[in-house]
Amino acid sequence: MAFDYINALLKKEVTRTPVWVMRQAGRYLPEYRATRAKAGDFLSLCKNSELACEVTLQPLERFDLDAAILFSDILTIPDAMGLGLYFAEGEGPKFTRPLTTLASIDKLSKPDVGTELAYVNDAVSVIKNNLKGRVPLIGFTGSPWTLATYMVEGGASKTFSKVKGLMFENPKHMHQLLDVLADTIIDYLNGQIEAGADSVMIFDTWGGSLNKECYENFSLRYMQKIVSGIHRQYEDRTIPVTLFTKGGGAWLEQIAATGCDALGLDWTVELGDAQKRVGNQVALQGNLDPSVLYATPEVVEAEVKKVLDQFKGKTGHVFNLGHGITPDVSPDNMKVLVDTVHSYSQSK
Amino acid sequence: MAFDYINALLKKEVTRTPVWVMRQAGRYLPEYRATRAKAGDFLSLCKNSELACEVTLQPLERFDLDAAILFSDILTIPDAMGLGLYFAEGEGPKFTRPLTTLASIDKLSKPDVGTELAYVNDAVSVIKNNLKGRVPLIGFTGSPWTLATYMVEGGASKTFSKVKGLMFENPKHMHQLLDVLADTIIDYLNGQIEAGADSVMIFDTWGGSLNKECYENFSLRYMQKIVSGIHRQYEDRTIPVTLFTKGGGAWLEQIAATGCDALGLDWTVELGDAQKRVGNQVALQGNLDPSVLYATPEVVEAEVKKVLDQFKGKTGHVFNLGHGITPDVSPDNMKVLVDTVHSYSQSK
Repeated sequence: MAFDYINALLKKEVTRTPVWVMRQAGRYLPEYRATRAKAGDFLSLCKNSELACEVTLQPLERFDLDAAILFSDILTIPDAMGLGLYFAEGEGPKFTRPLTTLASIDKLSKPDVGTELAYVNDAVSVIKNNLKGRVPLIGFTGSPWTLATYMVEGGASKTFSKVKGLMFENPKHMHQLLDVLADTIIDYLNGQIEAGADSVMIFDTWGGSLNKECYENFSLRYMQKIVSGIHRQYEDRTIPVTLFTKGGGAWLEQIAATGCDALGLDWTVELGDAQKRVGNQVALQGNLDPSVLYATPEVVEAEVKKVLDQFKGKTGHVFNLGHGITPDVSPDNMKVLVDTVHSYSQSK
Repeated sequence: MAFDYINALLKKEVTRTPVWVMRQAGRYLPEYRATRAKAGDFLSLCKNSELACEVTLQPLERFDLDAAILFSDILTIPDAMGLGLYFAEGEGPKFTRPLTTLASIDKLSKPDVGTELAYVNDAVSVIKNNLKGRVPLIGFTGSPWTLATYMVEGGASKTFSKVKGLMFENPKHMHQLLDVLADTIIDYLNGQIEAGADSVMIFDTWGGSLNKECYENFSLRYMQKIVSGIHRQYEDRTIPVTLFTKGGGAWLEQIAATGCDALGLDWTVELGDAQKRVGNQVALQGNLDPSVLYATPEVVEAEVKKVLDQFKGKTGHVFNLGHGITPDVSPDNMKVLVDTVHSYSQSK
């Protein structure tokens, strides 16, 4: 496979620094908003493999991106477990049946991913066919801890008081919940890999809300289980796995020790420092502050170059933002970002 | 002065580890809710020095705390600058006249703290008189960067897109804004010290949203200016200053280098690690996850002891939470926290 994106994750030679952007298929693109309007709500868009394919490919038409990422949501798994996912306009994800009792946790079981989440694998297949080998396709999941926060809180939270209350008071039930999530995620990612995903990424959006001991016990341990349980080699493909704990900059050594191929970094970590700490073990992905895209093209170009300058060496770096691209940025600035990554990394 | 709290901040000998808690005068206390109802809205409570004193002292009646902290809000300064602070129920702080243009920044000037913010100094004096030397009184401010985020965004934000857009695109205006805020804060803290505050703390709630370069240029630099500009010695009192950047665990060395006396830490940093990095320069304050207070008293006790065990040495540690106490915790657990800090640190 000659893809720069895969090669960078595996620390093999690249022609230039590969780049993709979290939420690259998203609201900042007018064509995305049009398809979403056609689909109705967000979840219907995720569940319609043709439309999910359509939005996945949209950013590739505009920008010279080095990877596509499956269009889906991290909360498909709790939805398949019967929690009833919905999106209240302007309020983010919610569950009609959150886990409010220990009994509700006892009742949870691993869904049959092949049937209950068939729409995700279908989307992967459709996208893969439509990509025609143009760029690799990234599959993904939320981390067990991150999924658990939504399942116990019933939606987004600032303080995580319910899920942390459970964790501190009933660690046994917390582990039980995380374990069934990890097992489900292993099936889920393997399904995506079998359907054609070329790499996978685990988004641990809320691991950074924990202290070190709790992070290791309640988040990292279950990501480790997933890293060990998924296909790292499938047919003739090596499948790199990237772990991204937002706000996890203090624990890069521990994350790298899971045996993953790459670490996603947010912008609070300097790429050069991260490389000194763990660069021999893993590739690094990141880490421009998405807010830079609100500035002028000149500033975008300068800030992209600063990130590239921090990384020492020709490979082992996948350029990305440190978090998802926000809905109200200009697509023109996204183009400047992508083109600058390529031109500047080739000239270095 | 024989206060453990002050001595710990100055790394002098203590009889036991001192403890106070951010937002200790707050909604988790029924007596606070009663006084607040009497005052009307939150801002009226802050502006009424008798009632502000009343709520400041309430937690001291219940718990064996080692310090009182002025009851006020971090946004009094932008309010005095004419932005029109108000609190929409359940929505947090808002401004009627946020800084939406460069011209609005040009028009800002340093308010006369002695008149425009006289109510804050009055509250300090009234509290100080009522404390009768029982425990020291902490004065505080928000950091320039943190105040600026609210002033430019018009309220709370998740992405800080407006203020970061300004920072990246018009750094000159951003610096101008931060500079007038830093100058005002110097007057503001000096006013509190002159009115009787025994120590001061700078809350940099949103510094952790920045990358390292921006943190140093747009947040830390202005806290440094404040540290250098305030009374560190006033009459016969040494006034310790504590800096707290939430999410700033990666930059402890830089924060300590400002010459402050102590660092506030959130729970994502281990106290032992922090001490290894900067412990000879500064005292450390923190850092229990406030969510522990949702668990049983037994768990609270165990987790408090874990924090105390991480700190090596008899002094230089002020026990606190890693963020404010949340509104829906049990005051009984707060008592367990305070009593455990004292009994366990005395027995060590």
